[in-house]
Amino acid sequence: MLKIKSAEILCVGTEILIGDIVNTNAAYISGRLAALGITQYYQGVVGDNPKRLSARLTEALERCDLVIMTGGLGPTYDDLTKETAAAVMGRRLVPHAPSMERIKAYFERSRGVMSAANEKQAWMPEGCIVFDNSHGTAPGCVIEDDERGKAVMMLPGPPREMKPMWDESGEPYLAKFSDHVLVSRNVNICGIGESAVETILSDLMRSSENPTVAPYSKDGEVRLRVTAAADSAAAGLPLCDAMIARVRGTEVGKWIYGIDTSLEEALVRLLKERGLHITAAESCTGGLISQRITSVPGASEVYDGGVITYANRIKETLVSVPAETLAAHGAVSEETACAMAEGVRLLMGADIGISATGIAGPGGGTPEKPVGTVYIGISTPDGTEAKRFSFTGDRERIRLLTSSHALRMVLVSLMRPDI
Amino acid sequence: MLKIKSAEILCVGTEILIGDIVNTNAAYISGRLAALGITQYYQGVVGDNPKRLSARLTEALERCDLVIMTGGLGPTYDDLTKETAAAVMGRRLVPHAPSMERIKAYFERSRGVMSAANEKQAWMPEGCIVFDNSHGTAPGCVIEDDERGKAVMMLPGPPREMKPMWDESGEPYLAKFSDHVLVSRNVNICGIGESAVETILSDLMRSSENPTVAPYSKDGEVRLRVTAAADSAAAGLPLCDAMIARVRGTEVGKWIYGIDTSLEEALVRLLKERGLHITAAESCTGGLISQRITSVPGASEVYDGGVITYANRIKETLVSVPAETLAAHGAVSEETACAMAEGVRLLMGADIGISATGIAGPGGGTPEKPVGTVYIGISTPDGTEAKRFSFTGDRERIRLLTSSHALRMVLVSLMRPDI
Repeated sequence: MLKIKSAEILCVGTEILIGDIVNTNAAYISGRLAALGITQYYQGVVGDNPKRLSARLTEALERCDLVIMTGGLGPTYDDLTKETAAAVMGRRLVPHAPSMERIKAYFERSRGVMSAANEKQAWMPEGCIVFDNSHGTAPGCVIEDDERGKAVMMLPGPPREMKPMWDESGEPYLAKFSDHVLVSRNVNICGIGESAVETILSDLMRSSENPTVAPYSKDGEVRLRVTAAADSAAAGLPLCDAMIARVRGTEVGKWIYGIDTSLEEALVRLLKERGLHITAAESCTGGLISQRITSVPGASEVYDGGVITYANRIKETLVSVPAETLAAHGAVSEETACAMAEGVRLLMGADIGISATGIAGPGGGTPEKPVGTVYIGISTPDGTEAKRFSFTGDRERIRLLTSSHALRMVLVSLMRPDI
Repeated sequence: MLKIKSAEILCVGTEILIGDIVNTNAAYISGRLAALGITQYYQGVVGDNPKRLSARLTEALERCDLVIMTGGLGPTYDDLTKETAAAVMGRRLVPHAPSMERIKAYFERSRGVMSAANEKQAWMPEGCIVFDNSHGTAPGCVIEDDERGKAVMMLPGPPREMKPMWDESGEPYLAKFSDHVLVSRNVNICGIGESAVETILSDLMRSSENPTVAPYSKDGEVRLRVTAAADSAAAGLPLCDAMIARVRGTEVGKWIYGIDTSLEEALVRLLKERGLHITAAESCTGGLISQRITSVPGASEVYDGGVITYANRIKETLVSVPAETLAAHGAVSEETACAMAEGVRLLMGADIGISATGIAGPGGGTPEKPVGTVYIGISTPDGTEAKRFSFTGDRERIRLLTSSHALRMVLVSLMRPDI
């Protein structure tokens, strides 16, 4: 009888081997396999070549219970995953009437022309379980070999087709084999560094086997990943939540801004709860702060608008930075950052104004203010302040870090009970 | 004697197998190997487990001349790539004095505390070629086995360390084995669809073997990839350029906006050439258009500022959209888009004003204006116009496509001789 405890992902596509695309499919499926408690020791990529594909698939089936293949299910002559896997598993291809209907309907809907090559996509390995494709023409499938206790799953290559098929068919198929699952929750922390978190939680981390607790940092933020092994997600979640409650009881607790969220989501949520409106005047970030806030659905409840004040002239006319401030301290200064934050808050009639002015590079640095020098300002009716930062990295990274720290500063100020 | 014609990438890291990180290293190295004319038939990922690592490395060395490993060079006990590869290649580890000095200097510079574990990073396989790490502590290396004609290259896992080491040491090392290189240039096209490009160029594409010409589309843009095989990059580039000249001679020629560039780079360059200033009033894109323009170094020569007019109130007060326009046609309308584009152009004293107003979702759609309905406006002293678009996808994708089409519309209008 078929039992699935271990799996390997084998992605098919010469475009991966020549570096044309990044293999996000493997990462997506790997994460889901881990959550299902299915172990993966190895992962591979092979080109659109039936001989090499056959060799790698045969080897992989020696090592594990299930091989998950992505790609090579298209209509063209070099899409040979299904043909090759069927041969390795000793099956022939037969027409699958429901898939033929679906493909015909797909072309009618999209007003495209169905070619003979598309019909090939409806020929499936005999006796396989067919996965419908809700976002394209290529069906997926699983070939099971009960005698050997092995299976091969095939999914389309484009992530926009693969992910929904995995969610709708692949994962439900595998869930029935799983006797335990891994449940993870990410605890989002800001205002305290990774090493401080590690020091405070070291005993907790060392003494915890289930759930495990591990910190990691990402773009100027610290996260704690809490992972529990349990019989089901329903049984694992309370284990995670109990551990999160223990973390909340430590010194780290007051720096937790959310669970499984992002800076911008947590900020928009907190602003909604407080009934506050935010705005931003951006120079070096060029719109990135506003863009991140408005990436959250429903941001319009807390954000009415913002400005990008790139040139000094616009800093003066739009957000009322005094010409004397610019002349005396320069555009990249604490004084200008404060004036921008206050000016945009008043302009927009908002409760909180953020500002960012700095040198994102590659040009524009000076010995006193090298590339990476950034001032971030926050203004509320209670007062206005700005902080200096020295970021490293390229233009893109400096802009990203600036926007993260701006969001983080507002979040921390909202979380502090005295504000 | 060692000859390197084929390679496999073997990435080491349990974090890849559990889906915590996307394997961008493999894509980067794959692209560079293709450019060097080194063939890759297969690619793998294995966890931090010396037994499995040893098995996969041994197999890979049977199949190809060079195995490139990334990851597992860190200071902790589960970083075992160097130890394992040295054993497979029959080498012992010996202290490498220059690396020890570099690591010590690195900790002094960053004011960190160097542990005994970090010393392990300076022990290298005997007789290997050491690659300095300019962005971290772990050196890389190559172990060559001249007799077997095999080699193993080891690079650090973090992309911020791996990429510079590849560029500075890995690629120069491999270049000496290469007897031909692949040189690619991307021809950027906008204002004409992929299928039209394919129809116009079909004869050229079919008849060209070196360089090859292949179109592909990405985020609402069409690109042509021209790839030449030659003895050197210096010999390959003229082949590409001659082919690009032939493409320019076709109907496609007038839609080419640049070579190896991006919409925002091409736009900023063209605006600089014309001495024009641009600005944007954004609603649904929330700052993304300005952020993309200002992502280009030197954007300050053509961009002074912009606004995000999210709420209707701000559309009225900041960019003078008449209240009657909003009442009669709604915020998502041709009329509002035109008023926003003209209003922001006048506010900023710019030559060109862009606007975007639409429904990015997931909420806010109606039968008349479903999610994905977007109006993009362009205003110049000669006139103002707006176009309606119907995009599909999630909030992020609708915002991205809106920003791409806005930049594209300006670029096309600048490229048309009559404007």
